[in-house]
Amino acid sequence: RAYDLVEPLHPADIADLLELLQPEQRHLLAAAITDLMSGEVISELNDYVRDDMIESLPASAVAGIAEQLDTDDAVQLIEDLDPRDQRAILAELDPENRAVIENALSYPEETAGRLMQRELVAVPEHLKVGDLIDFMRDQDDLPTEFWEVFIVDHRHRPVGACQLSWILRTPRHIPLTDVMQRDQTLIPVGMDQEEVALRFQKYALISAAVVDEGGRLVGQLTVDDIVHIISEEAGEDALLMSGAGEGDINEPIRDAYSARVRWLIANLGTALVASLIIAAFGAAIEQLVALAILMPVVASIGGNAGTQTMAVSVRALATNQLTKSNTRRILWREMRVAMLNGVTVAALIGIATAVIFSPMLGLVIATAVVINICTAGLAGVAVPVLFDRVGQDPAVASSVFVTMITDSMGFFAFLGLAVACGLAG
Amino acid sequence: RAYDLVEPLHPADIADLLELLQPEQRHLLAAAITDLMSGEVISELNDYVRDDMIESLPASAVAGIAEQLDTDDAVQLIEDLDPRDQRAILAELDPENRAVIENALSYPEETAGRLMQRELVAVPEHLKVGDLIDFMRDQDDLPTEFWEVFIVDHRHRPVGACQLSWILRTPRHIPLTDVMQRDQTLIPVGMDQEEVALRFQKYALISAAVVDEGGRLVGQLTVDDIVHIISEEAGEDALLMSGAGEGDINEPIRDAYSARVRWLIANLGTALVASLIIAAFGAAIEQLVALAILMPVVASIGGNAGTQTMAVSVRALATNQLTKSNTRRILWREMRVAMLNGVTVAALIGIATAVIFSPMLGLVIATAVVINICTAGLAGVAVPVLFDRVGQDPAVASSVFVTMITDSMGFFAFLGLAVACGLAG
Ligand SMILES: [Mg+2]
Ligand SMILES: [Mg+2]
Ligand SMILES: [Mg+2]
Ligand SMILES: [Mg+2]
Ligand SMILES: [Mg+2]
Ligand SMILES: [Mg+2]
Ligand SMILES: [Mg+2]
Ligand SMILES: [Mg+2]
Ligand SMILES: [Mg+2]
Ligand SMILES: [Mg+2]
Ligand SMILES: [Mg+2]
Ligand SMILES: [Mg+2]
Ligand SMILES: [Mg+2]
Repeated sequence: RAYDLVEPLHPADIADLLELLQPEQRHLLAAAITDLMSGEVISELNDYVRDDMIESLPASAVAGIAEQLDTDDAVQLIEDLDPRDQRAILAELDPENRAVIENALSYPEETAGRLMQRELVAVPEHLKVGDLIDFMRDQDDLPTEFWEVFIVDHRHRPVGACQLSWILRTPRHIPLTDVMQRDQTLIPVGMDQEEVALRFQKYALISAAVVDEGGRLVGQLTVDDIVHIISEEAGEDALLMSGAGEGDINEPIRDAYSARVRWLIANLGTALVASLIIAAFGAAIEQLVALAILMPVVASIGGNAGTQTMAVSVRALATNQLTKSNTRRILWREMRVAMLNGVTVAALIGIATAVIFSPMLGLVIATAVVINICTAGLAGVAVPVLFDRVGQDPAVASSVFVTMITDSMGFFAFLGLAVACGLAG
Repeated sequence: RAYDLVEPLHPADIADLLELLQPEQRHLLAAAITDLMSGEVISELNDYVRDDMIESLPASAVAGIAEQLDTDDAVQLIEDLDPRDQRAILAELDPENRAVIENALSYPEETAGRLMQRELVAVPEHLKVGDLIDFMRDQDDLPTEFWEVFIVDHRHRPVGACQLSWILRTPRHIPLTDVMQRDQTLIPVGMDQEEVALRFQKYALISAAVVDEGGRLVGQLTVDDIVHIISEEAGEDALLMSGAGEGDINEPIRDAYSARVRWLIANLGTALVASLIIAAFGAAIEQLVALAILMPVVASIGGNAGTQTMAVSVRALATNQLTKSNTRRILWREMRVAMLNGVTVAALIGIATAVIFSPMLGLVIATAVVINICTAGLAGVAVPVLFDRVGQDPAVASSVFVTMITDSMGFFAFLGLAVACGLAG
C-alpha cells in the first residue's frame, strides 16, 4: 500500500517524505519501495539523511546508484562517507567513472572542481549550425539536460558559448562562431561556491564552463544546482550569527551539541566580562538597588541595536555590496540611524525612570542608552568588516564580540555615570 | 575618461559601480555615460538606487527604457514609484505595453502574476519537431532568451513543456507531443514568490508556465529572476530576526530608522518585564550583591541558547522542512540538545561560582542555567511554530518573545532559587 501511494510522486517529493519520517520508519519505507529509490531520489535527500541511508546499503548497490547519476550528483553521494566506505564504493565503479570521481574528490569541498558535472556538450569552432544539429541528433550519450553548447579550440579551451535558443532560430548554413557569445563567464576549478553563486546571480547564468589552470574546459556548473548553494549560503548566515553552526534539523544530536555549546561557552566568557564590570560597582548597587533593576535594560537595548546593525553589515558583505570603497559611507549611515534610535529610546526610558525613580537617574539611563546604541552601531559595522578584512567569515564570530561590547558598555556607562553623578557608590 | 573606463563593463557591473557611489556622484556618472545607461543596467540596480535614479528622469525617458525591457523588468522598474509618476509613465507607453503592465500591477507584490514575463514561446499541440524549428527560424519577435517551449491546447491551456535540448536531438518528423513532458510544474498567478522559489529549487526548474484562474497560459517565470528571490528570501530572515527590517544598505535613513526603532521599543517593553522581576527581588539583591553580579549571566546564556534554537526552527520552517508531521520530533530533538548544553554550561559556571562565592550559590546558578537553557529550547521551537501556524512570518516577531521568555526566566529562576535556598531575602 505504501508503494502505491508513493509511486506517482516526483523523486524530490519522495525524498521530502523520507526526510519527514523518523530514522527507523525511514528505513522501513525505503525497504518497501526499493525499486522507486532511484538515484534521483537519493541525490535529492538532505546530506545527513542520505549518508544515513547509504551507510545501510552494500558498496555495490551504492556504486550502482552512482553510475546512474551525473558526476556532480555521484560525487555528492559519496563525498561525506567515511574514507573506508568511500574506497569500497570506488572499487566497485567502472574505471572511467572512478577516475572522474577521484579527480573531483581531489578538489576541496565547496569549490567549482568538486561541484561541477563532467557531462557537457563541447564542439569545435569550425562547425555550422546545421552540423551541430546533425551531431546532436546522432549522438547517443548527450547529457540528459543541457542549456548551452560550448565551443572549444583545438586545445579544448572555450572560445564561446551558444544558448540552444540561438541555435534553434538560426538557419543551418550559418557558422557557429557567428551565433555564439564570445564573452562568457568562465569559472576556474578552484573558485569557492559562494563566489560561483554570486556570479550566477549577477550575470543571470543558466550554465557556465569550468576551466582548469591551463584554461581547458573540464566541466560545467548548472543553475539547478547553484540555486541550492544560493539558498544555503544566504540562509546559513542567520544560523552562524546565532551560533547554531549548520543548524540542519537532520544533524545528529552530538554534532548539534558540539557546534552550539562552544558558542554558549564563549558567551559565558563574555558574560563574565560584564559581571566583572558589575562587580566593580558592587558598592553602588548595594546602596541603590534601582541600579540593579535597570542595568539589564541598557545592556539589552544595546545588544539588540548591535545585532540589527551586524545583520545588515554581514548581509551586505555576503552580497559584495559592502566593500572597501564604501565602508566609511555605510559606517556613517549606521551612526546616523543609531543616533536617531538612541534619542528615541533614551527619551522613553529616561522619562519613565525620572517619574518612577528620580530625574537624575532618568538622565543617567538616557545618556547611557544613547552611548550604548551608538557603540552598538559602530561595533555592528566595524566587527564584521574587520573579520572580513582578515579573511574570516563575518557571520561566524561577530555576534560574540558585538554582544560583549554592548553588554560591557551598557553596564559600564550606566553604573559609571550613576557613580559620577553622585547617585551612589 | 569615465566613459572609456565604463564602456567595456557588463551591464550588471555598471549597476554595481553606480551602487557603490554616493548619490551625488552617482548622478554625475550617469550623466557622463548616458548612452551606456541601457535598460539592462537600470534593471540590475538595487531597488532604492533605481528609484532614486528614475525619479530624476522625465516620464518619456523612463517609458522609453521600459519599452526596451521584458515585461517583468519593465514592471519592476515602475512598481515602486509613487502613483503620480507611475501614471505619467504609463501614459507615455504604447497602448499594448501599457495594458500588459497595468495587468501585472493589478496582481499583489511578490506574487507570480506580478513577477512573470509575458514573452514566451507557446505552440499548438499538432506540430512536429521540424515545424517548430521552421517556426522559430521564421519568427522575428521571439523572446531574447528562452529555455523551454510550452505546448498549449486550443484554449491556450498548457498541455506540456519541451526543453530545447530535447528538440535539438530529435528528428524533424517526430510529433512534439512525443517529445514534450506532460507533467510540468504550473504556477498559479496568485502564488507567493516564496513558494515559487521553493518549487524552482525542489524540481530543478529553469522556467515554468504561469496560469490564470481558468488554467490558461499567461506568462512564464525564469530561473535567472528566481535566483534573486531565493537569495532575498533566504537572506531576509537573518535581518528580520534581528529586527533590522529589510536591512538594505541603500534604504533611506528614515526608513531604516522607523523599521528598527519599533523593535528597539518592543525590546524596551520586554526588558521592563525583566526589570519588574528583578525589582520583586530587590531586598535579596541589597542583602547579597553577588546576585546582581551574576544574574545577567543566566539571562544572557539563555538568550543565546534561545536564539540558536529559534534560528534553526525559522530556517526549517522557511524551507518546509519543519511541518506539522515532525514538530514533536524536532521539539524533542531540541530539548535533548538543550539538556546537553545546559548541563555543560551549568557545570562550568556552577563550579566557578562555588569557588569564588559559595557552594550553595554555585548550585543555585547551575540549576538556574539548566532551567533557562531548557526553557530557551522549548521557546525557540514553540514560538516560531506558533507564529507560523497562525499565518505570521516566524522570522519577524519570534525574537522579541523568545528573548522576553529567556530574560524573565533567567532572572526569576536565579533570584527565586537564591531566596528559596535561604541565601538572601
Ligand atoms: Mg527536498
Ligand atoms: Mg555534501
Ligand atoms: Mg539535478
Ligand atoms: Mg547537476
Ligand atoms: Mg559558506
Ligand atoms: Mg557565507
Ligand atoms: Mg548588482
Ligand atoms: Mg521591487
Ligand atoms: Mg513572502
Ligand atoms: Mg526576467
Ligand atoms: Mg534578466
Ligand atoms: Mg519574503
Ligand atoms: Mg521568509
